[in-house]
Amino acid sequence: MNNFEMKIVNEEKMFAGAQRIYTHNSQACNCEMRVSIFLPPQYFTSPHIPVLVYLSGLTCTEENFTVKAGAQRIAAQLGVVIIAPDTSPRGDNVPDNDSYDMAKGAGFYLNATQEPWQRHYQMESYVRDEITALAQALGVDTKRMGIFGHSMGGHGALSLHLKNPEVFKTCSAFAPICTPMQIPWGQKAFTAYLGDEQTTWQNYDSTHLVSQKSSRAHILIDQGMSDEFLTQLRPDIFEKACQHAGQKLTLRRQKGYGHSYYFIASFMEDHLRHHMQYL
Amino acid sequence: MNNFEMKIVNEEKMFAGAQRIYTHNSQACNCEMRVSIFLPPQYFTSPHIPVLVYLSGLTCTEENFTVKAGAQRIAAQLGVVIIAPDTSPRGDNVPDNDSYDMAKGAGFYLNATQEPWQRHYQMESYVRDEITALAQALGVDTKRMGIFGHSMGGHGALSLHLKNPEVFKTCSAFAPICTPMQIPWGQKAFTAYLGDEQTTWQNYDSTHLVSQKSSRAHILIDQGMSDEFLTQLRPDIFEKACQHAGQKLTLRRQKGYGHSYYFIASFMEDHLRHHMQYL
Repeated sequence: MNNFEMKIVNEEKMFAGAQRIYTHNSQACNCEMRVSIFLPPQYFTSPHIPVLVYLSGLTCTEENFTVKAGAQRIAAQLGVVIIAPDTSPRGDNVPDNDSYDMAKGAGFYLNATQEPWQRHYQMESYVRDEITALAQALGVDTKRMGIFGHSMGGHGALSLHLKNPEVFKTCSAFAPICTPMQIPWGQKAFTAYLGDEQTTWQNYDSTHLVSQKSSRAHILIDQGMSDEFLTQLRPDIFEKACQHAGQKLTLRRQKGYGHSYYFIASFMEDHLRHHMQYL
Repeated sequence: MNNFEMKIVNEEKMFAGAQRIYTHNSQACNCEMRVSIFLPPQYFTSPHIPVLVYLSGLTCTEENFTVKAGAQRIAAQLGVVIIAPDTSPRGDNVPDNDSYDMAKGAGFYLNATQEPWQRHYQMESYVRDEITALAQALGVDTKRMGIFGHSMGGHGALSLHLKNPEVFKTCSAFAPICTPMQIPWGQKAFTAYLGDEQTTWQNYDSTHLVSQKSSRAHILIDQGMSDEFLTQLRPDIFEKACQHAGQKLTLRRQKGYGHSYYFIASFMEDHLRHHMQYL
C-alpha cells in the first residue's frame, strides 16, 4: 500500500473532533471507495490513539453509521478513531443486480471468486488490507485496533476478527449474521460470490471459524429480541459454538429491541467501552 | 380539540423508551400530519413528565431530528418527552412549488393569509394548538413544556415562545433564523405567505417580537461560526435586541461548527439540560 492517497470530500466539526468522508482508490475493489472517519479531539494533539473499524449491514453505505449510530459523542470522550467503510464496491463499472441482499450494498465482506463479481467484490481484502493501511496512513495506533459491525457487518466483524485476531484485536457486534451458511441471505450471496462448493463457504462462516480456532478476545454481541430478522441471524447457534470452542462471549438478549439504528444507538456506548477496556 | 385521534405508524424501542411516529388529522393544516414522539422509560410508569417540542429546519420532515440529533439518550436519562412535528403540511392536495425554501418542507411556523397557501399552511396554529393538544392527549405535564428548534425551526421556537411564554415556558435554538424580515429566506417566504405588507411580518420576527415584549425565560442559542448560512441567521442582531429588551439570552458562538445535525448533536445534551433546569 504505497502512495495511499486519500481525499477528504466532506468534513464537519462534531463533538470537538472531525467527522470526515474520504474517497480513495481501492486496488482490491478496483474502484473508488468512500470511507467515513471520525477523528476525536485527542487525535489532533496526539494521533497515536486506538482505532475501531465499523462494518455496516445490507443496503447501507458509509453514511448510515455516521449519521444514525450516535458513536461520535462517546468516541470523543474515550479518544478513539472510528473508521466506517462502505459495504461494497461502487460505481458504474461495478456489476449490480436488483436485489437488496446481493451485489451493491451487500458485499458480505468476502473475496468473490465467481463471474461477474470477482473483479470488484473483494471486500475481505479491502477491509483487512486497505482499511488497515488507511488507518496507518492516519498515524493512529494500529496495534490497538478493534472491529465491530451490524447485521451483515456483524458477520464481517466476527469473521475478520476470528481470521485475523492479531490485526483486529477486539470484536463486538449488533445483531450479527452468525452463520451465513445456514440462512437464506448467506446462502444466496455465497452461492453467487463463491460458487456451489460449500467447503469454500466455511471460510466466511463465523460459527464454523470459531469451531476451528477461537480467539483470545472477549466478544460482545447485542441482539434485539423483537428483531424481525432473528431467523437470519442465529446468535444461539454461534453461542453454542463458542461454548464448545472455549471462545469468551457475552451475548445479551435485549428485550423489545428491533434491528434498526435505534437499537444500535441504544447500546453503542457499551460497545465502545467494551473495546476500550481491552485496547 | 375533542376526539383527537392519533395513530401509531411506527414504533421502535430506543434507550429503554419508545420512539414512535404518529399520524393524525390536522384541522389547522387541513391534511394528515406526521409527528415523531420519543417517550422515555419514565413515561410508562408515570406519564405526567415534562415535554419539549422540537421544530426542524428547511427541507426536513419529522424524521431528521429523530434519526440524527441523538436526543433520545439524554431524554431517557432526564425523563422528558420530545415531540418533533413535520415542517409543513403534506399530501397531494397541498400546494407546493420547486423551491427548497418555500412551500412543502418550509412552512415557517406561521399562518399564511395569501392564496394558494392559506388553506393548508397554518403551522403556527398547528404547533401552538394541535401539538399542545397532542401532548395533553399523551397525558404529559403540559405545564412543564418547552420549545426548541434548528434554523427555520429555531425561528419557530423563538417566535412561538415569545408570543406564548405561558405555553412554551422554556426556549432554546440551534442556528436559528433570528430576524426573518431582514434576510432573503424570510423575505421570500413572508411575501408569499403573508403578502407585501411588512407590518404583518413583524408578528413572526423574533427580533421584533422581543423588542415588544421579552419573556422571563433564559433563552439558549448555539451558533456554529463556520455555518455557511450565517448571513441568513443573524444572531448578532437578535442579541442586541435582547440586550435592549432585557431578555435573558446566552448566545454561544461555537468555533468551527457548521449548520448540520453534526453540530446539533454536539450540543443537544446541553440544550436538554438547559430546558430541564427550568421546567
